[in-house]
Amino acid sequence: MKTGTLYGVGLGPGDPELMTLKALRVLQKTQNIAYFSKGGKTGHARAIMAEHITANHNEMPLVYPVTTEYPVSDPRYTTLIGDFYESASVEIAQKLSAGEDVAILCVGDPFFYGSFMHLYRRLTPSFPCQVVAGVTAMSGCWTAAHTPITWGDDILTVLPATLPEDELVRRLKNTNAAVIMKLGKGFSKACLAIEVAGLTHRATYIEYGTMANEKIMPLAQKTDGKAPYFSLIIIAGNGRKI
Amino acid sequence: MKTGTLYGVGLGPGDPELMTLKALRVLQKTQNIAYFSKGGKTGHARAIMAEHITANHNEMPLVYPVTTEYPVSDPRYTTLIGDFYESASVEIAQKLSAGEDVAILCVGDPFFYGSFMHLYRRLTPSFPCQVVAGVTAMSGCWTAAHTPITWGDDILTVLPATLPEDELVRRLKNTNAAVIMKLGKGFSKACLAIEVAGLTHRATYIEYGTMANEKIMPLAQKTDGKAPYFSLIIIAGNGRKI
Repeated sequence: MKTGTLYGVGLGPGDPELMTLKALRVLQKTQNIAYFSKGGKTGHARAIMAEHITANHNEMPLVYPVTTEYPVSDPRYTTLIGDFYESASVEIAQKLSAGEDVAILCVGDPFFYGSFMHLYRRLTPSFPCQVVAGVTAMSGCWTAAHTPITWGDDILTVLPATLPEDELVRRLKNTNAAVIMKLGKGFSKACLAIEVAGLTHRATYIEYGTMANEKIMPLAQKTDGKAPYFSLIIIAGNGRKI
Repeated sequence: MKTGTLYGVGLGPGDPELMTLKALRVLQKTQNIAYFSKGGKTGHARAIMAEHITANHNEMPLVYPVTTEYPVSDPRYTTLIGDFYESASVEIAQKLSAGEDVAILCVGDPFFYGSFMHLYRRLTPSFPCQVVAGVTAMSGCWTAAHTPITWGDDILTVLPATLPEDELVRRLKNTNAAVIMKLGKGFSKACLAIEVAGLTHRATYIEYGTMANEKIMPLAQKTDGKAPYFSLIIIAGNGRKI
């Protein structure tokens, strides 16, 4: 029997209109749609696609057992999340083996820090997989902030806020443009690193970029020390302007 | 009189289906569409939008006087390109002043190394501007190459091949994942830098990614030393896999 195809579908940064034509076509023709979520919430990926979900779709929520309760270095995190990716892959493999296609919804671009990648690497040896690139969260955010990010020969460095503070400082001092992702619990550390690197005056904070509850402000004005997972900091390059 | 609005519309990496729903909506409602091109060619941006152009559109080709004939450090380049951006801005400003909207077509994402930015910075002080984020060339390319680019805490460094070789080497040695853009005349230098950094075995070359004439191969197999402007090299990170 012919197996189904796994689709990893990038939905863009949050605004449903920033979905690509290809993403919409794939989602309209695929019965099974899987998406990550946290207990009790529908998740951002499903929310972006909400207006295109019909009664013909079979929804497969993949519910994280934990997200930020443990540091990623904690063996409990690795075990819980590893088991979760394993069982989600088994659930999806059952559909694919039965000849049904499955689309996994991804916020942003699937291959750029995507949870989808952990399912992709488990399933791609056994099933045909197609990935639809999406607008990244960072593109959505620098556009929402009216900020061209790289000019001419500018170097862009993308840094997860999960890195140690001294490494963040060193990297920030040695780049033209920067994006700091995965803020959450690392937000205060990231702010300190930016301050030590002397870049606070050039930094912009963006929360839920392109979504209905978007907030954008100079980092210097973001003083409550709190940032959700869907937030990032941008520092634009200052390269060649002709 | 009310002025028109300037739109900077990201069309994605090349596959017309990787245009966003928002890009298509803006282009369908905007009479004047401007795009960069090189003498005698229609340009990639117009090609991506081709199937959506109707008799109601007024096309405004913006023809580069030079592209790679002079190094960017040559005063002749700066003068010719500077004059070109100035006169293109004047031409667009006339439409906007007359109350007409103008959409500038952009390959990839408008605020990521976009030529559009040079018109944006001239026009945005005087006219309302809206930018539509797009799928970047690099997202299109790493997806076409079936290559997740960043895992876990991976740092991504985006490097223009126009940088000096020793700087490329130093940067490549100090990152988890890398994308080398703007190959063209800098291709051989970039290959040498990757070799010196000991990364050739991890590098993938992608030419016209997501377009009809796409070519993808391990960098080690790309031995003719030639690369067009629409090509890049990716080196994927090897971070946390759970």
